[in-house]
Amino acid sequence: MNNLEKKFVVGVDIGGQSAKCGVVDARGNVIAQTRIVSNTQTEAEDFVKELAVALKGIIAQAGAEGQVRGIGVGAPNGNHYTGQIEGAVNLTWGAGRVIDLAKMLSAEMDGIPVALTNDANAAAMGEMTYGAARGMKDFIMITLGTGVGSGIVVNGEVVYGHDGFAGELGHTAIVRHNGRPCNCGKTGCLEAYASASGLCRTAREWLELTDEPSIMRSYDVLTPINIFDAAKQGDKLAQKVFEYAGTMLGMAFADFIQFSAPEAIVLFGGLTHSREFFTDAIEKAMNANVLPLWRGKVKIIYSELKESDAAILGASALAWEL
Amino acid sequence: MNNLEKKFVVGVDIGGQSAKCGVVDARGNVIAQTRIVSNTQTEAEDFVKELAVALKGIIAQAGAEGQVRGIGVGAPNGNHYTGQIEGAVNLTWGAGRVIDLAKMLSAEMDGIPVALTNDANAAAMGEMTYGAARGMKDFIMITLGTGVGSGIVVNGEVVYGHDGFAGELGHTAIVRHNGRPCNCGKTGCLEAYASASGLCRTAREWLELTDEPSIMRSYDVLTPINIFDAAKQGDKLAQKVFEYAGTMLGMAFADFIQFSAPEAIVLFGGLTHSREFFTDAIEKAMNANVLPLWRGKVKIIYSELKESDAAILGASALAWEL
Repeated sequence: MNNLEKKFVVGVDIGGQSAKCGVVDARGNVIAQTRIVSNTQTEAEDFVKELAVALKGIIAQAGAEGQVRGIGVGAPNGNHYTGQIEGAVNLTWGAGRVIDLAKMLSAEMDGIPVALTNDANAAAMGEMTYGAARGMKDFIMITLGTGVGSGIVVNGEVVYGHDGFAGELGHTAIVRHNGRPCNCGKTGCLEAYASASGLCRTAREWLELTDEPSIMRSYDVLTPINIFDAAKQGDKLAQKVFEYAGTMLGMAFADFIQFSAPEAIVLFGGLTHSREFFTDAIEKAMNANVLPLWRGKVKIIYSELKESDAAILGASALAWEL
Repeated sequence: MNNLEKKFVVGVDIGGQSAKCGVVDARGNVIAQTRIVSNTQTEAEDFVKELAVALKGIIAQAGAEGQVRGIGVGAPNGNHYTGQIEGAVNLTWGAGRVIDLAKMLSAEMDGIPVALTNDANAAAMGEMTYGAARGMKDFIMITLGTGVGSGIVVNGEVVYGHDGFAGELGHTAIVRHNGRPCNCGKTGCLEAYASASGLCRTAREWLELTDEPSIMRSYDVLTPINIFDAAKQGDKLAQKVFEYAGTMLGMAFADFIQFSAPEAIVLFGGLTHSREFFTDAIEKAMNANVLPLWRGKVKIIYSELKESDAAILGASALAWEL
C-alpha cells in the first residue's frame, strides 16, 4: 500500500506523569486510545519499548494494522528538526540528556515514520487541523496550564525557527523590574503571572498584602480550581486575581500581534475553564497596547477540541504531514 | 520572451522626500539609477506618472527594454497582499488615503508586474537576496533610522501575517510604566528609545537631569551625528546615550528571539554607523534577557549592502519573486 493511501495516524502526547496515545482517522475521530505511565522508567529505551507495545495494542484494537501513515509525538522540549527530546527536566528518563525519540520509536514500530514536536506546537497543529483554527493561516496558540506555552502558525506552517525551538512566548518579559522569578531562571516572564502557579501566587500575595475580605482566606491551599470557585461565588478578590492574569496576557498579546499579525489568538489548557473571569481583561489590555491598526481586530478564541482528546489529536496532526 | 527569461528587475524605494529607482541584474548590480521628488505631488496619479517616466528612462539607459521581469516597490505602509499604500502620513499624496499603487504603476508601465511591500520588509528581502543574510532562512531585519522598522523572515519567507502588516517590532513595549510617548500614539515603544529621535531625546534628558560634563553641552542642536562625534572624542555621557539605546534594543531582541528563534538579527540604517558604541550593550542585554538555550547563540550582524544602493536592491529583490 502506498503510504498516502493509509487511512490512520497515531498521536502520542508525552507528559511528566503519563503518555496518552490514540489512533486517529482523517476526520479527527479517536478510534482507540490508551495511556501508559511515563515517570517510572529511568532509561528512555524502556519507556520507548513500553510505548511501542501500547501503540501496537491500540492499532490492533482499531483494526488499523498496516494502515498507519505515521506517528506524531508531542513532548516537552521536543525538536521537530532533529526528532530529539533535549534536556526535558520533568521526564524521569529525559533530564540532562538528548533522547533520539523519533528514531527509537520508529525502529520499535517496524519503520512507521515518526514526527516529534513540543506539546504547544502539537496543540497548534491540532487546532489548525481539527479545531478552532480550521482554515486559518496565521494564528498563535497559547496554552495556559502549569506553564504558559505557545505554538505560532505563520502562513499555514508552524514556526520552528533556526534551531527548532521557536515559540517560547511564556518567557516574554512582562515585568522588567522586580519581576517574579520564573522556573526558567529569569524574572518577570509572562509564565510567572499567567500560568496556574502564577495565578495562585497572585492570590497568595494579595491575601497577605491586603485586608480585603475573601472566601479564599478560608482555604487550606490555593489552587486554580478553588480560586475559580471563589470567583464564581462573587468573591471580588478572586475575580481580580483572574483579571490580573488576563491583563498580563493582553499586554503580551499586543506585542505578539505586532510581530506576526495573526488572525486570532487561540487559548487552550486548564485555566481556560475560568475564561469568563479573564477574557474581558485580555481584550482590554491587548487593545490598549497594540497599534491602532489592529485595535478590535484580532480575535481571542478558545480551543474547540474535546479536552480528553486534544493532546492526542494535536500530536496526530503532525503525522499527516509525514 | 518568457517572463522568467527576462534578465532585469527594477527597484523603487519611496520615501517622504524622494523615490530612488534603479535597474538591477541578477547579481545585484545596479545598472542604472535615478531619483524623483515625492513630496511635491498632491495626487498619487501625478506621482505615478512621473515615476513611470523616470523608470522608462533608466530602463532605456540600461538597455533593458522588454527585459524587465518585474518592478518591486518599498514604501511606507505598503501592503504586499493588496499592492496598496494605506494611510501613509508622511507622503504628501498618501495621508488619509488608500493608494492602489501596484495596479496604477503596472498600468503606466505597459503591464510589467509590480510587487509592493513596506520599506523594512524590502530591506530584509535585499539582505537575504544580496547581503548579510544570504543563505539564511530565519532572521530578523531591524532598521534603525528616523523610526525603528522591522522585516521578519521565517523559513525563507517574509512574514506578512493575516492582513499584510506583520513586523511592527519598533512598537514593542519596552517601558511599560511612564514610558516616553511614541509617534504612534502609544507610550514606551522601542522606537521612542532606539530611533534617531529617541537617541537625541535620551541625550537631551540626561543633559538636563545631570551636571555631568559633556562636549554635547556646547552643541546648538543635538543630532545622532554630533552625539556620535562626541562619543568618538571620548565623551562618557555621549557613549552612555548609545549604550542605553543598545540596552533597550537588546532587551527587545531577547523577546524577538523567543518568538521566532532567528539565526541572526541584522541591523541596517543610519544609526548603524555608530555601532561601535552600542553593539556590546545590545549583546549584553540580549543575552541577559533571553532563555538560556539561546544565550550567546544568536548573531548580531550588520547590513552588507552599500547604503546608496540598499533601498533599491531591497525593493528590487521583491520583483524576482513575481
